[in-house]
Amino acid sequence: MSIVFMILAILLVWVMTPGIAVFYGGFVPKKDISRILFDSFLMFGLAGLMWILIGYSASFEGNHLGIIGNLNHLFLSGVSLTALFEQTKLPTAIVILFQMMFAILTPALFIGAIANRTRIKFVIGFIILWSLLVYYPLVHMVWSSNGFLAKIGVLDFAGGTVIHINAGITALVLSNFLLKPYKPAGQVKGNSFWILFGTALLWIGWYGFNAGSALALNAQAIQAFLTTTIAPLSAMLTWITLENTYKGKITLSGICTGTVCGLVGVTPGAGYVTIMASFIIGIISALGSYYFMNNLKYKLHINDYLDIFGSHGVSGIIGSLATGLFATRTVNPNVMNGGLLVGGGFKLLFIQILGVLFTIVFVVVINCLIVTGLKRLMKDDVYSPEMDELRHIELT
Amino acid sequence: MSIVFMILAILLVWVMTPGIAVFYGGFVPKKDISRILFDSFLMFGLAGLMWILIGYSASFEGNHLGIIGNLNHLFLSGVSLTALFEQTKLPTAIVILFQMMFAILTPALFIGAIANRTRIKFVIGFIILWSLLVYYPLVHMVWSSNGFLAKIGVLDFAGGTVIHINAGITALVLSNFLLKPYKPAGQVKGNSFWILFGTALLWIGWYGFNAGSALALNAQAIQAFLTTTIAPLSAMLTWITLENTYKGKITLSGICTGTVCGLVGVTPGAGYVTIMASFIIGIISALGSYYFMNNLKYKLHINDYLDIFGSHGVSGIIGSLATGLFATRTVNPNVMNGGLLVGGGFKLLFIQILGVLFTIVFVVVINCLIVTGLKRLMKDDVYSPEMDELRHIELT
Amino acid sequence: MSIVFMILAILLVWVMTPGIAVFYGGFVPKKDISRILFDSFLMFGLAGLMWILIGYSASFEGNHLGIIGNLNHLFLSGVSLTALFEQTKLPTAIVILFQMMFAILTPALFIGAIANRTRIKFVIGFIILWSLLVYYPLVHMVWSSNGFLAKIGVLDFAGGTVIHINAGITALVLSNFLLKPYKPAGQVKGNSFWILFGTALLWIGWYGFNAGSALALNAQAIQAFLTTTIAPLSAMLTWITLENTYKGKITLSGICTGTVCGLVGVTPGAGYVTIMASFIIGIISALGSYYFMNNLKYKLHINDYLDIFGSHGVSGIIGSLATGLFATRTVNPNVMNGGLLVGGGFKLLFIQILGVLFTIVFVVVINCLIVTGLKRLMKDDVYSPEMDELRHIELT
Repeated sequence: MSIVFMILAILLVWVMTPGIAVFYGGFVPKKDISRILFDSFLMFGLAGLMWILIGYSASFEGNHLGIIGNLNHLFLSGVSLTALFEQTKLPTAIVILFQMMFAILTPALFIGAIANRTRIKFVIGFIILWSLLVYYPLVHMVWSSNGFLAKIGVLDFAGGTVIHINAGITALVLSNFLLKPYKPAGQVKGNSFWILFGTALLWIGWYGFNAGSALALNAQAIQAFLTTTIAPLSAMLTWITLENTYKGKITLSGICTGTVCGLVGVTPGAGYVTIMASFIIGIISALGSYYFMNNLKYKLHINDYLDIFGSHGVSGIIGSLATGLFATRTVNPNVMNGGLLVGGGFKLLFIQILGVLFTIVFVVVINCLIVTGLKRLMKDDVYSPEMDELRHIELT
Repeated sequence: MSIVFMILAILLVWVMTPGIAVFYGGFVPKKDISRILFDSFLMFGLAGLMWILIGYSASFEGNHLGIIGNLNHLFLSGVSLTALFEQTKLPTAIVILFQMMFAILTPALFIGAIANRTRIKFVIGFIILWSLLVYYPLVHMVWSSNGFLAKIGVLDFAGGTVIHINAGITALVLSNFLLKPYKPAGQVKGNSFWILFGTALLWIGWYGFNAGSALALNAQAIQAFLTTTIAPLSAMLTWITLENTYKGKITLSGICTGTVCGLVGVTPGAGYVTIMASFIIGIISALGSYYFMNNLKYKLHINDYLDIFGSHGVSGIIGSLATGLFATRTVNPNVMNGGLLVGGGFKLLFIQILGVLFTIVFVVVINCLIVTGLKRLMKDDVYSPEMDELRHIELT
Repeated sequence: MSIVFMILAILLVWVMTPGIAVFYGGFVPKKDISRILFDSFLMFGLAGLMWILIGYSASFEGNHLGIIGNLNHLFLSGVSLTALFEQTKLPTAIVILFQMMFAILTPALFIGAIANRTRIKFVIGFIILWSLLVYYPLVHMVWSSNGFLAKIGVLDFAGGTVIHINAGITALVLSNFLLKPYKPAGQVKGNSFWILFGTALLWIGWYGFNAGSALALNAQAIQAFLTTTIAPLSAMLTWITLENTYKGKITLSGICTGTVCGLVGVTPGAGYVTIMASFIIGIISALGSYYFMNNLKYKLHINDYLDIFGSHGVSGIIGSLATGLFATRTVNPNVMNGGLLVGGGFKLLFIQILGVLFTIVFVVVINCLIVTGLKRLMKDDVYSPEMDELRHIELT
């Protein structure tokens, strides 16, 4: 039964990559749409191939210092696809496919931050190096049973650190400190249909993302299904209340952004927290992301046109810390120390803060090294000349 | 096995709300699209929160006079999510989620009738009161084992009365007798892509809606899957035949509307009737809805711009009565009295007529009370000033 | 467990018909969109009804000379829907529904080739005759255990011959030798969103198409899931590499077309070949289709505006032959003779060549007869007068 459930989950996470493509596509000017869609869809080929070639082995097979796996199973050689995977009772092929979808989605989440500014060869080079030096190590550290963050007890049910903080910080670093940011000129007329429908695809995909992360159809999966329903609901209502209060108007892009923030926020604790906690997490994720996107972003002169850091980064951090407040053994027996607000003391919160800080520092440092190296290698020829690369991506 | 099946069904019904949003969005003028999408999507937050807060308890826990449940489980407090629900062998969480999707979808079906004419605070007020006073009582009366309509033997496999007649009548009442109707000026150029794709989303979602209503993966679920395939097929062919005969042209919006009418028509009997009966139900649903939309509507000066009553109301009534003609024990042992045309006599048909009439009267009366009350409360300030509220919903 | 899996597969293949509709819709000029969408969606009603009425019985019940079944079960009369089907342990209703989706999809794949040029009554007549004389015989010959191509050992896991070569050749024959082809004037500005999203719908549907063709949730289904992930990945990368090399630009339509070719190519061998073989099949399918679409098509003056033959025909042939190179018992014990490159000798390759040639000749001959007959019957009044039929399909 769990196998059918996991196949469903794989398909749902699969959907999120086209989902994020059309969601971002809905926000950009007409001339940039094809390029945003192209780069997101390219992640299937690029990050997908990397995962089969190296990623699975480097993330889940063997262990070096709790930081990275081995390279013994390049192109899945020597992997018995039908053998049952470690602890879970799932065929290894299922685990490989489920994790592959995350390896494809994560770069699709942040690539919009630079897609329309950089040459495609820079995008390709960056994704390859980022996969090797940022993503696979983080997966190993958090989700492999040998990973060092897993061992100190960091809780990340479905990818708050590995996926959302990672994607948000990468987007922030790329488009602010390392590369010229993507900044369309003038007033952009978005496409309401695709913004709404992209949000819908992301949400339904998130059910696979969060519930599937139980890796079995058990009580935690059903709990994650419920919390993934409730957090976006309270987040969307919070968002439009804020808009109405501070702007005197409510917007379609607002209700959609609020929904995404609620989904990001509940991700790290989806299978660890109660219904009521997920309701609260939805509210505080929306509060934090709204404050960042409408205030802090401008004060700090941060460029974040598609609000990638504003949603995935900010709500990802809030959700990871909130897991330190609300995680409880009554929901999930895997929780060793309960969160601060459910009587577990400061220990888990402290571990979660450590995990978040480590992730931020790790992602910032490695990305800086990668971009500096790539720029030198490409002799600074990383940017699309005005409209040049864009002309290269066209509809025949 | 049934749990995975029900999770799939929940996801499918989930899809219908964005489906109806983009379907309606395809029919309205460009300036109204964002507002239609917004109001439909808002139902997730609004009706979803109401369901968790009050709806589940009021619909399914306890019983008062066969009309309504109790309020002992506000915000699901005291509900054991993993305990098995009553008769079905499903965890309660699954039943809560499946029913939640209906509680969200039903208002999304009719909100298009007034969305672009009324203030958002009126929409919010109406949905809250309609959920409490119309929807939860109807769910309890028809689907709770203690409900009085269930007890007299009204058959409603997947929501003909509770959802479609309810939504259709509510739309009719709101936009004709109580509020100024939504009526775009001039010739509207719709969006073919979204009309077709919205229909596709509704249809695939309907598989979860109808087959999932068996609440288990059994012979009735598979039967409902088949009938949900066949009725829209005969309905779409009937519709374009009618168009070709009476208008001399066939249209994309016609084939899509016909499909939806077939789906509505088969809903009340999906798990009670034979393949052949579902084929006939598709035809008569299309006939009835076509006649209403192209003739009666104009004769009676009814406003029904998005044809919400024309499809959900008319085909819902036809389908509920047709269940009294075709329901048979050979398909479903839960049918106590077979329908008139399968040798069961008039009894079931009489009960179905009673159920339909009761639903219509109930929905009309309570909606009138709600709107009258709300108008008084809001001092008649319920309408968007020309373009005002619309400007308030915009894409930033 | 296999039943839920098959229901999921049915839903996924269902999705491919709207998927192909919006995919083709993305490539045509604005005025032709409604007609393309209409004709594709009409296949649900037309080919769906035909399947229930005659198709299932003619394809799977009884046997005449290994070529066709019987007509004893018109409108599924006398078929026990819940009884288990032959070899598979699935309820017959599930097999009927799964196969029905293919019977609907296949004509939707090729109808775009003539939709905007021919009268709708010609489309209806052609689909009815093609279903009876081309499709049901091919299904019987390849997939019925009594079929003569099945008996000589032709391997077609999910429909390389029956569906893709058939659709590709039919499109080629119709729009080149028998009817005036569809050829929009001037530069067409496609719709990037729908091209990308159509591709996404096709791909996710293909998981049901290929993995579901195992007719059970077993090791072959999971293998097909993997190969259906990997072939499009290598095909998309191959395609944009070719574009970059020969055109100096890469395109969104290119990455999408490449993806579809990879999916077509892996279809016949999906459950018979290794991961590495699927990677290679993706590459050679893209190479072959790219060469045809960008070179051979123009040299041979072939009309193939939507590249239906170029993708489904060419990659379908390549994939069927590649099955003769790569099929192996280590993946699937049903493979009697392994392929040439895995040490099985020439036997399987020879059988596959025979199967492909037979399919091509059969489809060409019968289609010629059908069209010649229909033209005579309709007194050559088969074409839409300039813009006439198009005006008939309009959005009210």
